[in-house]
Amino acid sequence: DSANGDNVFYGEFLMNAQGEDVVAGIRTPKLIKELQAIDEDSYAQLLDIRVKLEDHYRDMMDVEFTIEEGRLFMLQCRVGKRTAIASIKIAIDMVAEKRIKPKEALLRIDPEQLNQLLRPIFDSDEKKKAIKSAKVIAKGLAAGPGAASGVVVFNAQDAVRVKNEGQDCILVRVETSPEDIKGMDASEGILTARGGMTSHAALVARQMGKVCVAGCGKLLINYKKREMRIDGREDVIVKEGDYISLDGSTGEVISGKLETIPSEVIQVLVDKTMTEDDSPNYKMFKKIMKWADKYRTLGVRTNADEPRQVEIALSFGAEGIGLTRTEHMFFGEGKISPMREMILAKTKEEREIALAKLLPLQRKDFEGIFSVMDGRPTTIRLIDPPLHEFLPHQVSEQEEMARDMNTTVDAIKARIESLHEFNPMLGFRGCRLGTIYPEITAMQARAIFEATVNVILSGKKVRPEVMVPLVGHVMELEGQDKIIRQVAREVMGETGIEFKYKVGAMIEIPRGAITAKKIAKTAEFLSFGTNDLTQTALGLSRDDSGSFLPTYVEKGIYARDPFQTIDEEGVGFLMKHAVKKARKARKKIKLGICGEHGGDPQSIEFCHRLGLNYVSCSPFGVPIARLAASQASIRDKKKK
Amino acid sequence: DSANGDNVFYGEFLMNAQGEDVVAGIRTPKLIKELQAIDEDSYAQLLDIRVKLEDHYRDMMDVEFTIEEGRLFMLQCRVGKRTAIASIKIAIDMVAEKRIKPKEALLRIDPEQLNQLLRPIFDSDEKKKAIKSAKVIAKGLAAGPGAASGVVVFNAQDAVRVKNEGQDCILVRVETSPEDIKGMDASEGILTARGGMTSHAALVARQMGKVCVAGCGKLLINYKKREMRIDGREDVIVKEGDYISLDGSTGEVISGKLETIPSEVIQVLVDKTMTEDDSPNYKMFKKIMKWADKYRTLGVRTNADEPRQVEIALSFGAEGIGLTRTEHMFFGEGKISPMREMILAKTKEEREIALAKLLPLQRKDFEGIFSVMDGRPTTIRLIDPPLHEFLPHQVSEQEEMARDMNTTVDAIKARIESLHEFNPMLGFRGCRLGTIYPEITAMQARAIFEATVNVILSGKKVRPEVMVPLVGHVMELEGQDKIIRQVAREVMGETGIEFKYKVGAMIEIPRGAITAKKIAKTAEFLSFGTNDLTQTALGLSRDDSGSFLPTYVEKGIYARDPFQTIDEEGVGFLMKHAVKKARKARKKIKLGICGEHGGDPQSIEFCHRLGLNYVSCSPFGVPIARLAASQASIRDKKKK
Repeated sequence: DSANGDNVFYGEFLMNAQGEDVVAGIRTPKLIKELQAIDEDSYAQLLDIRVKLEDHYRDMMDVEFTIEEGRLFMLQCRVGKRTAIASIKIAIDMVAEKRIKPKEALLRIDPEQLNQLLRPIFDSDEKKKAIKSAKVIAKGLAAGPGAASGVVVFNAQDAVRVKNEGQDCILVRVETSPEDIKGMDASEGILTARGGMTSHAALVARQMGKVCVAGCGKLLINYKKREMRIDGREDVIVKEGDYISLDGSTGEVISGKLETIPSEVIQVLVDKTMTEDDSPNYKMFKKIMKWADKYRTLGVRTNADEPRQVEIALSFGAEGIGLTRTEHMFFGEGKISPMREMILAKTKEEREIALAKLLPLQRKDFEGIFSVMDGRPTTIRLIDPPLHEFLPHQVSEQEEMARDMNTTVDAIKARIESLHEFNPMLGFRGCRLGTIYPEITAMQARAIFEATVNVILSGKKVRPEVMVPLVGHVMELEGQDKIIRQVAREVMGETGIEFKYKVGAMIEIPRGAITAKKIAKTAEFLSFGTNDLTQTALGLSRDDSGSFLPTYVEKGIYARDPFQTIDEEGVGFLMKHAVKKARKARKKIKLGICGEHGGDPQSIEFCHRLGLNYVSCSPFGVPIARLAASQASIRDKKKK
Repeated sequence: DSANGDNVFYGEFLMNAQGEDVVAGIRTPKLIKELQAIDEDSYAQLLDIRVKLEDHYRDMMDVEFTIEEGRLFMLQCRVGKRTAIASIKIAIDMVAEKRIKPKEALLRIDPEQLNQLLRPIFDSDEKKKAIKSAKVIAKGLAAGPGAASGVVVFNAQDAVRVKNEGQDCILVRVETSPEDIKGMDASEGILTARGGMTSHAALVARQMGKVCVAGCGKLLINYKKREMRIDGREDVIVKEGDYISLDGSTGEVISGKLETIPSEVIQVLVDKTMTEDDSPNYKMFKKIMKWADKYRTLGVRTNADEPRQVEIALSFGAEGIGLTRTEHMFFGEGKISPMREMILAKTKEEREIALAKLLPLQRKDFEGIFSVMDGRPTTIRLIDPPLHEFLPHQVSEQEEMARDMNTTVDAIKARIESLHEFNPMLGFRGCRLGTIYPEITAMQARAIFEATVNVILSGKKVRPEVMVPLVGHVMELEGQDKIIRQVAREVMGETGIEFKYKVGAMIEIPRGAITAKKIAKTAEFLSFGTNDLTQTALGLSRDDSGSFLPTYVEKGIYARDPFQTIDEEGVGFLMKHAVKKARKARKKIKLGICGEHGGDPQSIEFCHRLGLNYVSCSPFGVPIARLAASQASIRDKKKK
């Protein structure tokens, strides 16, 4: 801004030309010209200071100055703020100009900002039209990136109902509170009138990965009439059921429905007809990733359950799979029925009959994944969730299941009742299932190894890593390990094909971390399941924590949501202990992390410091992880 | 036994006369006389050997010998087995005879055996009658001590139903399985036809503190006809609904209902008209306790919530209260209603109105306890369970509550729904309640301190210790500590009475143990809540573990049920770490344990080794803890 009085000239400008064309609303050239016209001396002085500052900071600077009575005063000078894309562009340009090295460019990009290159966006033509026709009705804080459209609902119950009816919705509240959690989860986006970037709505939305515009003060919400108006825009009334759209990367609230499309980067990656030249963003993305891979020492894998997801992750640069959840497969077409049969089985024999039906289906799943992976390490986790999750809880579904299985609804209800748990998180799940029903482990191992053989026969390479979940006691792992190795020998014998594989443990309860030395004597790799490790180490159910955790973060009890960023003092203590002890027992043991923290930059830095071999995260997190891992390496070397 | 052939005399006898009259079925005097008559030389030899053996072992010996062709052969010699009461009597007699020292006598008594002096028993006249009239219909393994009567049910669902109808029942099964857990919990006793001392039934029964007779092979159970017969007793048919009685200390199954009465020791303690001379058992009990107190260094407190329980515990020798659960008080008469009002409150103001109603009721509770304690340290834990536990879950009760509170059933249901948690163990409970609703903490602190003042004014001493539950982060404790100290100052100011008190933390989640050093900077004491610490460290819900934990113990994955005996490798690691770190931060910090492990001898020994100041257990566990603590001290000194 400039305030040009009689003999006072006040201004603030961004100095570095590279930023100008990408930083919205910066009027630097105009301001500078204006100054030149008024005061040639001060102008020359400023240009001189500019060169010195640039030489010193090697970054885009935000300079505030005033000229009084013809004398130039420097008021303030700081590194200029910029949008995500601008920050990437500036960094790349400065490397091209040889002002900074790629290492430094990498450190200047916030990994979270990469997200903005990857999240869905509104179709730009549509958005332009919306802006033109004044459909951008308000602006709030960009509290959860991405783009979302849906019908407006004004309370959590309605959000759940609308979602169940198959419609997308946007939850609009003055502010959110713990009672709204289920509604927030059911909505595509959240819009609030009150609250900042660390308000309940903002924290929960980011945790859930929802689009969020918070603290949009111009909203006039009338819960009784189920409508909202916009202060200063008498022409707008949004009623319950009307469509609105939220741009969580800019904070814009748009009336009507806008189509969302994948980001440019994703479009290039997915659409084989597009090339790099169709997207400057993709070009930048690729350059950053190339630099990042040069510096990082930490491996980056992905958590993926289907060949399609795996393909995306590989195109993002994933080097392996850190977690394939086999249970998601059981929900696939034709698979839930034998799974339920298995659960209803009363004897080992009945169970084995049902498992025999599941075997070819699981084998096919694994074949699909192994084919895409073609020799990259692929960690497959044995069945993990409590069995009741596979049974239907609605009466109509139970009736259907009873017909299908030739049994009674009462029999199904009785089994559901007997499987009911007060705290399923801490219940009959993970390797406890395989310990009590070893035949389940045997079936899964057989599916994995038969798929291995088949894919080898198709001319590809396979590197399966079988992961035993929820290990708390070494004897649990020993029991499972024995079954898996026995099946592997059988499959090799039957097929005459030799293959290599690994057996390891998922460390997700404190006792597993505490006794890692013993566990590592049997485990060829350990992978930290930091979601559950956080739940158990902190005594904190993720699903239930919405009623108090946001307040805890607001009060600073936890600096960040421990489900987003690893709580180093608590969970990190257990990880550190486990790493130290495991390496004592088996020097070359492979150590990784497959909790959602594997995609969080701060947690990735922690994993680097711990000396893990890899992090594993969702496909869309892979680029972020690659950048964060490179930053961790660069910072680490700087220290040394 | 003696087998007296032509020239072979085979015998086995218990050597120590002190044991004879208490060891059932031993025919030593007769056997010895018989031998004397047949073979004077061998008899003399045996007497000589006896003296030498006694001198050497200083215990009752079980000697097996044979005399062939007039020559005495010693076959085997071992320390004789004995019943609980016999073991105590023998130990005391040997001290009286100066054969052993009290220290050694203490080591010879299994603390668990003391239980048999304390558990309910059948009225001995009634039992004699039952034995006479051949009502003892079968005998199995004494798998869970105590005595129980109830109607027979043959499956778990019926047990739950009968219990809900207000009747005591005995669950009879061929064997039990995880599906029977709820039925086992609903029954007074469990009787099985198959399975040993470590069968599912036996393990679960002992864990639940239920009477159990297991592996009673003569039972012929017919589930279809809902009846059982006894092999070899054609006169007996027990049908569903018939009464039977189980003596879990002897394994006897008795037809019909027998009255249970408190043990002799309890009778003397409770019945003021009885004296020591009315019970030889009590006399022995008292002597053992006196010796135990001389040697133990570990303090013994009790977990008690009501003045009546506190009185029993004090009569058993408790030196303080380690845990008073304030929430049990909320269920008392007239208290649940304002509690529910508090939970339904929509604003802080409404909540404070309800809390004001609770204040005098809580104060009265504390006055009762402080009066009985008269200056002994009294740890009071602030409210701990999730709020939904205080709301009714049956529709009829909800309707009643709606009428009482002048609100709608829907409003109550909505609040229950909003408080619903997937994993309440890990949910909105413990100090999380007081952190979000500081006014609850303030009310409880005020009730404690006003009661303190009132009891001081009545001429007694009071030593309140306010315990903050579920601390995982020091800032949680700091926040609660600040409120408590503020209220204390207020109460002192208002009443002009000065009093001393302590504020401490309950360590029951791994993060609390891990960060004990920081926590101990604020906490004046720490108490390990090992029930929850076991649940979180092992990722194991106690309520749900019945489906696999007994199998784990059978397989030896856990040597003992970790909810009975502290898992030293996992939970113990965290405790050890916490003790070390806490003492670093505050040298004189008082450290205790108030989980149920505080009554388990093996865990008590572990606590002694850890250097805790006290253990706290149920009133009936206090004598066991005193003995176990003395043994730990004696063994410890032996080692040094």
